[in-house]
Amino acid sequence: MTSELDIYTRQSFGHTIGFGHRAALLIVDFTNGFNDPALFGGGNIDAAVKRTVGLLAAFRERSLPIAYTRVVYAEDGSDASIFTRKAPGLLRLTEHDPAGQIVPELTPQAGELMVRKTQASAFFGTSLAPWLIQQGADTVVVTGCTTSGCVRATVVDALGYNFRPVVAVDCVGDRAIGPHEANLFDMGQKYADLVERDRIIEALDVSH
Amino acid sequence: MTSELDIYTRQSFGHTIGFGHRAALLIVDFTNGFNDPALFGGGNIDAAVKRTVGLLAAFRERSLPIAYTRVVYAEDGSDASIFTRKAPGLLRLTEHDPAGQIVPELTPQAGELMVRKTQASAFFGTSLAPWLIQQGADTVVVTGCTTSGCVRATVVDALGYNFRPVVAVDCVGDRAIGPHEANLFDMGQKYADLVERDRIIEALDVSH
Amino acid sequence: MTSELDIYTRQSFGHTIGFGHRAALLIVDFTNGFNDPALFGGGNIDAAVKRTVGLLAAFRERSLPIAYTRVVYAEDGSDASIFTRKAPGLLRLTEHDPAGQIVPELTPQAGELMVRKTQASAFFGTSLAPWLIQQGADTVVVTGCTTSGCVRATVVDALGYNFRPVVAVDCVGDRAIGPHEANLFDMGQKYADLVERDRIIEALDVSH
Amino acid sequence: MTSELDIYTRQSFGHTIGFGHRAALLIVDFTNGFNDPALFGGGNIDAAVKRTVGLLAAFRERSLPIAYTRVVYAEDGSDASIFTRKAPGLLRLTEHDPAGQIVPELTPQAGELMVRKTQASAFFGTSLAPWLIQQGADTVVVTGCTTSGCVRATVVDALGYNFRPVVAVDCVGDRAIGPHEANLFDMGQKYADLVERDRIIEALDVSH
Repeated sequence: MTSELDIYTRQSFGHTIGFGHRAALLIVDFTNGFNDPALFGGGNIDAAVKRTVGLLAAFRERSLPIAYTRVVYAEDGSDASIFTRKAPGLLRLTEHDPAGQIVPELTPQAGELMVRKTQASAFFGTSLAPWLIQQGADTVVVTGCTTSGCVRATVVDALGYNFRPVVAVDCVGDRAIGPHEANLFDMGQKYADLVERDRIIEALDVSH
Repeated sequence: MTSELDIYTRQSFGHTIGFGHRAALLIVDFTNGFNDPALFGGGNIDAAVKRTVGLLAAFRERSLPIAYTRVVYAEDGSDASIFTRKAPGLLRLTEHDPAGQIVPELTPQAGELMVRKTQASAFFGTSLAPWLIQQGADTVVVTGCTTSGCVRATVVDALGYNFRPVVAVDCVGDRAIGPHEANLFDMGQKYADLVERDRIIEALDVSH
Repeated sequence: MTSELDIYTRQSFGHTIGFGHRAALLIVDFTNGFNDPALFGGGNIDAAVKRTVGLLAAFRERSLPIAYTRVVYAEDGSDASIFTRKAPGLLRLTEHDPAGQIVPELTPQAGELMVRKTQASAFFGTSLAPWLIQQGADTVVVTGCTTSGCVRATVVDALGYNFRPVVAVDCVGDRAIGPHEANLFDMGQKYADLVERDRIIEALDVSH
Repeated sequence: MTSELDIYTRQSFGHTIGFGHRAALLIVDFTNGFNDPALFGGGNIDAAVKRTVGLLAAFRERSLPIAYTRVVYAEDGSDASIFTRKAPGLLRLTEHDPAGQIVPELTPQAGELMVRKTQASAFFGTSLAPWLIQQGADTVVVTGCTTSGCVRATVVDALGYNFRPVVAVDCVGDRAIGPHEANLFDMGQKYADLVERDRIIEALDVSH
């Protein structure tokens, strides 16, 4: 995308935001169903799950705020939506369905926030923004899946709220690689910094 | 993207939402600055502007609700944001800057809504959702630019609010064609119906 | 409040909004804990619960949309908030605590929406507005408790979204009568129509 | 309201929130029209305006974030709403109408944020929450009018976002004293700390 990159650069996109004073970790939809190629997974998602284990440990060691998202629909179909007309398979993700549970490698601990959501963005119709405010977070490190879906929608809303979005570029994945890469490009140019996991961990220990 | 399309189809994405009972037209950021390749424009944006003229006329003839968006920042920099760290050029789009005005071909008429926004989505921090509710709209036909930016963010939020998003596929444009196409793919699979302008106009006259 | 009423009338407040085309019923926080004077209840709440039974039946007979709210906090304290600093007792209202369950007289049926919330307003951080949009509702009949708390906050947000708020004046209650009456006055002047239950039921059968 | 106060105390309401680390000042609707008894003013509003002058100076001296709100409707009626059905007089408050301008005593300076709004709450459909996040504010000191209207709705939403709401109790006013007092009671019990102006200024200099 060389010439496309030129256009963005000439038009003043693609600057670096940088880290703020306090980062929260947000793990988007790393649930069994999104890590199962027979359901909603595939591609490079499992690799991203495995890379996230170390990032989660780094946030826990530093007692930084940690939140997870899961897609949860009502068992009786009462909150079926236009989104579930477009993608009806999502309706199986109910409170107790195994597909909707966080993958074992990343099991949440008490005191970490679980955000139940029905839309792509972790912020839409949830209490995530207020929780980040209460945590005093100004930076949101985003991992999870899919890059072209819930990760991107979450990043766009994080930016809207003026949290600094950092995409942990080797800790996000997608069912298909084309959309994964296209959405990394969009986010890197317009909405977020793209940073590798190990550079993020280093940044957590630097005063900004 | 044949094999990628297969993955989405197998996972139940890409269904058709269909039109509801009453459509509103939303024209996103078709301003001088976004139609000027020297500022934020280029690519196929000007062609999309010209295609939108007939769509706007069709909505006006049927007295259907019409809204426009413009990016407007304060002259004194008081609402500079994390987004404008990422893309500082946007700060020039102030209330009276020529670059921030709607293109002449699509000049708004009295009674049509103007949405001033500072983020990608036309819904974020605005009164667009309440206005659509008051208009009794259940379907939002989206035109404008850029496909990979404000159009997509707007479509994702329209879906979140349970408005049926219809992307007027020949009335949206982008500064670069790769992101334009990648984002049409994402929206068509997960968030919106992609419909050509003339099919949309036909649908306005059908009882659903 | 005669002379106060004069001020409001002179300043153009207190007009009637009227019903729209399709009403939804919203039952706010009629849970065991808010109907128990030893917890968060008392005053005229129980009377309001009993009056609501007939209203709920009327909405069910007409197959109109029905939603309930409950306050639900996480068991591990992860979503404690500034609100729960102000009113720490609320934290006991968890998913399975008996105090947080809907009162037996108003037990929800399958297909009716349950809104879990942590703030006063039923709209804040929830999917209530999108759900109402999908139901095609333009009018929200509000019952529940407390008048001076969650009912009022919900009414103000319903108005913000351009739903027509109708307070079922004999189906809302509060732990103390002074705040109940003061908030009915505020809502009637600025935010909602105050209508008795039986007049609401009549209005459901009139074409508007 | 002695016995009512007892009920609230027994039910765990009325605790003190306290100041956080960084306060922003929010001046709600202190415009000519809301300070004119012939329009939307009267009562103790003018006294509250005059008390606010010193508070504004204190925030400016300390270079703390300052925001104002104005009600602004479109000249062509395109954003008339259900709220303006209830209170039609508000529609005269357009961008350039003298009634909609901030009172001379509190003229904003460059770099201070102006929030244009059409609803009671300063947060609803605006970018106030994101701006507060970017300012690093965790506490919002609220002055303005009316206590029973825009001040209260703003306080409820500030709490929803987990900003600590502090009502500058001698810097808020209302067109009628009954609603003023009733709403101070509600806010003090459930949503905010009520603090006198001079105690607030002292608190700005204390490390929390």
